[in-house]
Amino acid sequence: MPSNVIGHLINGEQIQDTAHTQDVYNPSTGAVSKKVALAAKETVEKAIAAAQDAFPEWRDTSPLKRARIMFRFKELLEKNADKIAHLIGEEHGKIIHDARGELQRGIEVVEYACGAPELLKGEFTKNVGTNIDAWSDFQPLGVVAGITPFNFPTMVPLWMFPLAIVCGNTFVLKPSERDPSSTFYIAELLYEAGLPKGVLNVVNGGKEAVDTLLEDKRVQAISFVGSTPIAEYIYKTAAANGKRCQALGGAKNHAIVMPDADLDNVVSSLLGAAFGSSGERCMALSVAVTIGDEMGDKLVQELSKAMKTLKLGAYSEASNDFGPVITKQHQEKIIGHITSAEQQGAKIIVDGRHIKVSGYENGFFVGATLIDHVNAQMDSYKAEIFGPVLQVIRVETMEQAMKLINEHEYGNGTCIYTRDGEAARYFCDHIQVGMVGVNIPLPVPVAYHSFGGWKRSLFGDLHIYGPDGVRFYTRRKTVTQRWPSSGVREGSQFSMPTMN
Amino acid sequence: MPSNVIGHLINGEQIQDTAHTQDVYNPSTGAVSKKVALAAKETVEKAIAAAQDAFPEWRDTSPLKRARIMFRFKELLEKNADKIAHLIGEEHGKIIHDARGELQRGIEVVEYACGAPELLKGEFTKNVGTNIDAWSDFQPLGVVAGITPFNFPTMVPLWMFPLAIVCGNTFVLKPSERDPSSTFYIAELLYEAGLPKGVLNVVNGGKEAVDTLLEDKRVQAISFVGSTPIAEYIYKTAAANGKRCQALGGAKNHAIVMPDADLDNVVSSLLGAAFGSSGERCMALSVAVTIGDEMGDKLVQELSKAMKTLKLGAYSEASNDFGPVITKQHQEKIIGHITSAEQQGAKIIVDGRHIKVSGYENGFFVGATLIDHVNAQMDSYKAEIFGPVLQVIRVETMEQAMKLINEHEYGNGTCIYTRDGEAARYFCDHIQVGMVGVNIPLPVPVAYHSFGGWKRSLFGDLHIYGPDGVRFYTRRKTVTQRWPSSGVREGSQFSMPTMN
Amino acid sequence: MPSNVIGHLINGEQIQDTAHTQDVYNPSTGAVSKKVALAAKETVEKAIAAAQDAFPEWRDTSPLKRARIMFRFKELLEKNADKIAHLIGEEHGKIIHDARGELQRGIEVVEYACGAPELLKGEFTKNVGTNIDAWSDFQPLGVVAGITPFNFPTMVPLWMFPLAIVCGNTFVLKPSERDPSSTFYIAELLYEAGLPKGVLNVVNGGKEAVDTLLEDKRVQAISFVGSTPIAEYIYKTAAANGKRCQALGGAKNHAIVMPDADLDNVVSSLLGAAFGSSGERCMALSVAVTIGDEMGDKLVQELSKAMKTLKLGAYSEASNDFGPVITKQHQEKIIGHITSAEQQGAKIIVDGRHIKVSGYENGFFVGATLIDHVNAQMDSYKAEIFGPVLQVIRVETMEQAMKLINEHEYGNGTCIYTRDGEAARYFCDHIQVGMVGVNIPLPVPVAYHSFGGWKRSLFGDLHIYGPDGVRFYTRRKTVTQRWPSSGVREGSQFSMPTMN
Amino acid sequence: MPSNVIGHLINGEQIQDTAHTQDVYNPSTGAVSKKVALAAKETVEKAIAAAQDAFPEWRDTSPLKRARIMFRFKELLEKNADKIAHLIGEEHGKIIHDARGELQRGIEVVEYACGAPELLKGEFTKNVGTNIDAWSDFQPLGVVAGITPFNFPTMVPLWMFPLAIVCGNTFVLKPSERDPSSTFYIAELLYEAGLPKGVLNVVNGGKEAVDTLLEDKRVQAISFVGSTPIAEYIYKTAAANGKRCQALGGAKNHAIVMPDADLDNVVSSLLGAAFGSSGERCMALSVAVTIGDEMGDKLVQELSKAMKTLKLGAYSEASNDFGPVITKQHQEKIIGHITSAEQQGAKIIVDGRHIKVSGYENGFFVGATLIDHVNAQMDSYKAEIFGPVLQVIRVETMEQAMKLINEHEYGNGTCIYTRDGEAARYFCDHIQVGMVGVNIPLPVPVAYHSFGGWKRSLFGDLHIYGPDGVRFYTRRKTVTQRWPSSGVREGSQFSMPTMN
Repeated sequence: MPSNVIGHLINGEQIQDTAHTQDVYNPSTGAVSKKVALAAKETVEKAIAAAQDAFPEWRDTSPLKRARIMFRFKELLEKNADKIAHLIGEEHGKIIHDARGELQRGIEVVEYACGAPELLKGEFTKNVGTNIDAWSDFQPLGVVAGITPFNFPTMVPLWMFPLAIVCGNTFVLKPSERDPSSTFYIAELLYEAGLPKGVLNVVNGGKEAVDTLLEDKRVQAISFVGSTPIAEYIYKTAAANGKRCQALGGAKNHAIVMPDADLDNVVSSLLGAAFGSSGERCMALSVAVTIGDEMGDKLVQELSKAMKTLKLGAYSEASNDFGPVITKQHQEKIIGHITSAEQQGAKIIVDGRHIKVSGYENGFFVGATLIDHVNAQMDSYKAEIFGPVLQVIRVETMEQAMKLINEHEYGNGTCIYTRDGEAARYFCDHIQVGMVGVNIPLPVPVAYHSFGGWKRSLFGDLHIYGPDGVRFYTRRKTVTQRWPSSGVREGSQFSMPTMN
Repeated sequence: MPSNVIGHLINGEQIQDTAHTQDVYNPSTGAVSKKVALAAKETVEKAIAAAQDAFPEWRDTSPLKRARIMFRFKELLEKNADKIAHLIGEEHGKIIHDARGELQRGIEVVEYACGAPELLKGEFTKNVGTNIDAWSDFQPLGVVAGITPFNFPTMVPLWMFPLAIVCGNTFVLKPSERDPSSTFYIAELLYEAGLPKGVLNVVNGGKEAVDTLLEDKRVQAISFVGSTPIAEYIYKTAAANGKRCQALGGAKNHAIVMPDADLDNVVSSLLGAAFGSSGERCMALSVAVTIGDEMGDKLVQELSKAMKTLKLGAYSEASNDFGPVITKQHQEKIIGHITSAEQQGAKIIVDGRHIKVSGYENGFFVGATLIDHVNAQMDSYKAEIFGPVLQVIRVETMEQAMKLINEHEYGNGTCIYTRDGEAARYFCDHIQVGMVGVNIPLPVPVAYHSFGGWKRSLFGDLHIYGPDGVRFYTRRKTVTQRWPSSGVREGSQFSMPTMN
Repeated sequence: MPSNVIGHLINGEQIQDTAHTQDVYNPSTGAVSKKVALAAKETVEKAIAAAQDAFPEWRDTSPLKRARIMFRFKELLEKNADKIAHLIGEEHGKIIHDARGELQRGIEVVEYACGAPELLKGEFTKNVGTNIDAWSDFQPLGVVAGITPFNFPTMVPLWMFPLAIVCGNTFVLKPSERDPSSTFYIAELLYEAGLPKGVLNVVNGGKEAVDTLLEDKRVQAISFVGSTPIAEYIYKTAAANGKRCQALGGAKNHAIVMPDADLDNVVSSLLGAAFGSSGERCMALSVAVTIGDEMGDKLVQELSKAMKTLKLGAYSEASNDFGPVITKQHQEKIIGHITSAEQQGAKIIVDGRHIKVSGYENGFFVGATLIDHVNAQMDSYKAEIFGPVLQVIRVETMEQAMKLINEHEYGNGTCIYTRDGEAARYFCDHIQVGMVGVNIPLPVPVAYHSFGGWKRSLFGDLHIYGPDGVRFYTRRKTVTQRWPSSGVREGSQFSMPTMN
Repeated sequence: MPSNVIGHLINGEQIQDTAHTQDVYNPSTGAVSKKVALAAKETVEKAIAAAQDAFPEWRDTSPLKRARIMFRFKELLEKNADKIAHLIGEEHGKIIHDARGELQRGIEVVEYACGAPELLKGEFTKNVGTNIDAWSDFQPLGVVAGITPFNFPTMVPLWMFPLAIVCGNTFVLKPSERDPSSTFYIAELLYEAGLPKGVLNVVNGGKEAVDTLLEDKRVQAISFVGSTPIAEYIYKTAAANGKRCQALGGAKNHAIVMPDADLDNVVSSLLGAAFGSSGERCMALSVAVTIGDEMGDKLVQELSKAMKTLKLGAYSEASNDFGPVITKQHQEKIIGHITSAEQQGAKIIVDGRHIKVSGYENGFFVGATLIDHVNAQMDSYKAEIFGPVLQVIRVETMEQAMKLINEHEYGNGTCIYTRDGEAARYFCDHIQVGMVGVNIPLPVPVAYHSFGGWKRSLFGDLHIYGPDGVRFYTRRKTVTQRWPSSGVREGSQFSMPTMN
């Protein structure tokens, strides 16, 4: 990118449209590092038009050829992984190894997309009736759009566009305006991999850009990942405009710690799941529910001990465990949640509110925080904090714990720690959550399964990426075919036997 | 049903709630034959509550046991087919053989539902990572609702509830208030087949009933079949209430008649497709597009000749070809469309406006009508007439014909008549319609494929019945599982080898 | 059947061919009850010819129509279940409730076969290259044959012919000559359900009949269930004649009883698994491997106590737990195995060798037998006893137990009793056995999964029934299709755009 | 490779074992260019042992990690494509562009193998009974072996080992001893891509090597491609040793030329299909069946004209159309077939018997040959010639043509040239051939479908590569799991609700 302003990528070319811009921060230092352009309606429409123009030829390109661009894209992402990780870290704040991990999970969807010829197979039936055949094939929709959040500037876009594109659609991506550089760069790499012009377009922007995508008749489908209120707005508005939509929202992910759980394993795996990426993950494990006070006491004691070893600091230092949060406003909001829990009677065991990182005094840091004796009435329990805060709730039975989870507004991820086959099976079957872990606190489905929560964590009927992603980005067409027998053509030359 | 008022079926029992009722007609005679109760909000909520209560046990019933109720349901539907056909004919007007045909297509979905154990298989992966397994299973949603139209009072409900129920959901059905008896009766048969109380509930009603279903938080999903404006309202409102929805709307189905088409086959198959069930089918073939004037002339000539043999009359006479339309209002609307075409310059070749059926002078009859020289600007072309009216448009090339179809608001069904492999393949690939026939004018997909149009003929992302139906009525849950190795349990008793 | 000699069912008609016959016993009384004809080569060839003649029309019948015969077949099997169970019990000896259970498992495959239209879907790809499509469909093979054992005279035939036939094949069945009546009767019921003549044929017989099936060029595939030496012969001979073959052989099924297993559950479920049907099941649980001497002692003590309650007697008495074995020779062979174990140092805890059933003194009875301190070198351990004999082996670790199982010649079924998730997962992953139970001693896969062992328990690559059964009974055909553009046909009438 | 003798690749290392060797020729010059070692039994056993040792760790490696080696393998094959093509051309004789094409088709299977995580998904069922779950997963077999022919020294091996290996098996490949260099080199590239030692092993050799693979108990499965007599021997012997086997044999591929076929298209596509790679392809189109004498005359005339433009010469000259055949013996055999046709009454229209290529006078060349008026009794028709010889048979009707094909011993590939949808559909449905083309003379299925003939062109039940390949290289294991409820563990701490 030539200038300090991140623009748009339309029809394979960088477009500036800088009438409106917004600051992009380095959260580790708290300083503004770049600006990002906010697209006007016309710019978004230009992107849609480019995608629309590119569609007819792209849909007619064979799945194999489309897939081969994804093979090359994977190579380029791997070759440029360091650069991408730095772009992520600088604008998002996550530590470089975590940025690499994010990218890796995104690459896995690209690998899945390489299987397009298999994934796009339709269903064929000979003789639905006598000498009548039928088949269904799965055709691309046309122009589809993705709107993605700040917390995974490469992974979440990679959940969407590789699959949409390999299915034959053309794409308009509106990434987060908080950390646009890495997203922009991977889009450029896809062109370097051989993508025809206009098949992927990136527009930066705010509500005007979003609303243009939601209302434009040429856009056939919307994929969204973000907070629940926005997800709900997106789903409702997309539907009111006749579009299909999958809108993924917020989360409050609980781990049940059973009395027979292996405590060492619980503690070590919870640390990463609760504080990794400062808890700014929709799969972050933010509530531990202990069964029995004995386990509650032990867990809090061991966690608070282990948390002393956690290293907080700038994204660029690989030995850090986690970094700053995305903005000063968000930092204050998280601290407010901790204070509210304290005021409503919970006990702050480890307090991350007043932490200072030497050399990065203006960075947006919040330290790892452990809160005990939380209950379901507290505001801090109801909200998605999206910060490095782990809350502990103590109950007496597994059923109480499951009731808590099932009654929460969100149903994204959850986990049980146990050795017991029966407990695990009962939990998996009856918990009203879309992604479930057994002794795994971050049960993000692998790329060839699909990602999605239940309840108010997802609006729509198909999950994102994996087999559901393929189905979302395609439209079923069913052909029923009969060839009538005719005396004209065969004539004396060949006679077709009568069949019934 | 004991009285002359069709009530509701809630928790396996007939409920009256007759504060508001509406007349049910016998369209063949024009006389009121029964009344139907219109459910108040509270009655609908009672049905939802019954479904909600029945859900936990039903979801835990094995798919095989659920399927076996469908096996018995099929037997009962077949055993009572004559009775059902009469109930359909009396209130809808379609001839008894056509009513049998409708029922048969519905039974095919029941047959498909018998395969639930296979259809509900999830995806299992050993070693998504070292010693970590993952699987996705497809769990029922809870309470789901169906809203169905008058034109197929048994078939369309059977597209929905057997599949929803066999997937483990419980169901509230709001059928058309115009011809409720056959729908009610098949619901009773499902109970006779062994369905536990509350798993299927039927409420008759109007907008209040519909809106209650759309707004009640306990209802997880809505399936709808009807006209496009209502479908759009249903989709938008369901989405605004956070539900998943599939809403099937109107149609304008074109047949392209290529110069090499077998004319005898075209004529004989078009007769049934255009005039069967008085054209009151969303898959009715209502526009014939001829390529070249020579084919246009021949087709109009042969059709008008063949139409003379068509028999119009009461539903109960098996030798009739088709019967009355559903209401007096609808009869007038159809006649209005014919007149408008005439006024806008089309040529009425066969005129069904002034037909009288002897002995049934008050029946709501419209005769088979053929209109030539229609064009895309005429109101009669733009609208879905839903009557026994076939319009002919003449163009010069296949491309012009396809453009016409692709530019129409609807994209439900279409057909090409040809012997030519290339023409058929090009048409199937590029036509923007969900259900395509080659030499088949009514390409309704068989029960094990799925039914759905494109463009404004369907709102949502999954088609109805078949594999898409299963996916619509289930929610993906993905479990990721790891069993940590523990020194405690194995101890001296058994040692687990270290794996990586 | 009119006479006392069971003949053959060829082309839908009973054929006698009684030159050679063999006695059929009632094992409960030890008396000869009937005779069965043993088909000469010519008779088998007649059956093959009938199947060959019926094939062309049957393969062209739509899958839906074929499936509907299975729907009716299921109804008839259920309606005549009592009669079938009596026919089984009288000639096989298993108790009436067990015979009903056998039939039920067979009916489940018929239910699965009802899903043929879904199961036979092929794979369709648009644009394998530019404007080139490809699809694979799964076509029937032609005449296929099944050879089935005495121990499940209805279930095992039902594992084969319903699926083979619904896939479009025609079938020649050679059932066991020991208990032919129930098999013959269900074949007649399939005709009553509407099967066209010649699609299913039954020939009774011995080696001559088997060899004719193996060598006749018209027979395309062989399904076999029986002992391993014969399975091996069948597989080798079928292959030498160029046929596809699946041949299921013997078993030695072990249960590992872990120290944390629920003893009550182990004891009660082992009783049925070891002694049900006198152990004459290829999935019978015949070896219990206890981990640790403590568990060994407790298990032997509790089992021997529980075994006192077992009731042995004639098939017709529903309160009996199990009945006689199939022949006098087999009775003696089983007793010989017990004696050999005793001589080689094992301890006979409960001894069934000298049992007498009052009123049935000539019946072929062996009492439930429990043998402790068995080891892997004993002949009774190496052989498949196929009688009501449970042997206990004591080891110290789970690894030793798994090694024992993995080194055994057979790999049909196995089970682990535990509550521990890790132990169960490790066992399931690494045990070299095809059908694995966790706390389930008879892990026979349900009809919509597939049945098959590993190692010398199955020869071939596809398991029986379920998805593998469909694949076994069909032949993949892959079509690649291109329609070249031609100036001749489109000409002035329609121009096809150039695509690439 | 260091020396002039091609050895073996065992456990990732080159092994010489040069006690017996054989000459490798450059067919373009007729000179010996290298020697190849012929492995003794002990060497083959060493390879099997290496594969056996590598198996446990490789099967436990996650499918994703295994797939990533295939991603890198694809990159390396593409990077070294020129070198590979030269190695192929030098020893096989096919022109460099044809060698590139062969490699490309092989790479497509590697691309398919990259989708292993999706392809290896098993089937999961919750509640096969109350609280009982079952799943099937597809586990690798262990050591599997491939035996491949001279005519595609890279493509056919790539049909086998990438898929077998990505499924978790370890592999022993015995390639053709006529052109071993390219095969050896791609095996080395797979190691360069990161394959652990012993997972792929290559042994060169003759019958001793083959028989060792067929008889060794550690080898679980055999994939073979070659001539029918050898395929039959392999299948029979593998089965006699209890192994699963797929053995692909010879072919005689016919094209039906219908009266409405586009002649230009027929002629141009037949040239490549008949003479490409000197006809040394099991999918070579070697018989054209014309419907009607008019088409016969025109086709022969146009073909003979077009054949004058064909360029025959050394592999290294890219402008050549095809090159020499594999050996002097084979050259003579082909010439013998032509002469025999002539003697039996056919008419040699274009005679390739006496061709000389200047500068390559000792090369094994046969010129493109066209023979008219062939009939089904001629020896040249019955045999697979495997040379650049196209025979024309003239019949009157399509049915006669189909009868000819259906009665031929082989059923590998076939094609129809027509524009007529009915003719194409009837042909595809009823022709007894595994791979069918419509207007495509070489209908080799793409990598994500599967390759296989019918009748004596394939022994076994699963085709090679594609979905069938995955099934062939895996073994189904079905687990049925129940977790009994226990008072011990839950106790006062948590109570599990009673479920039924």
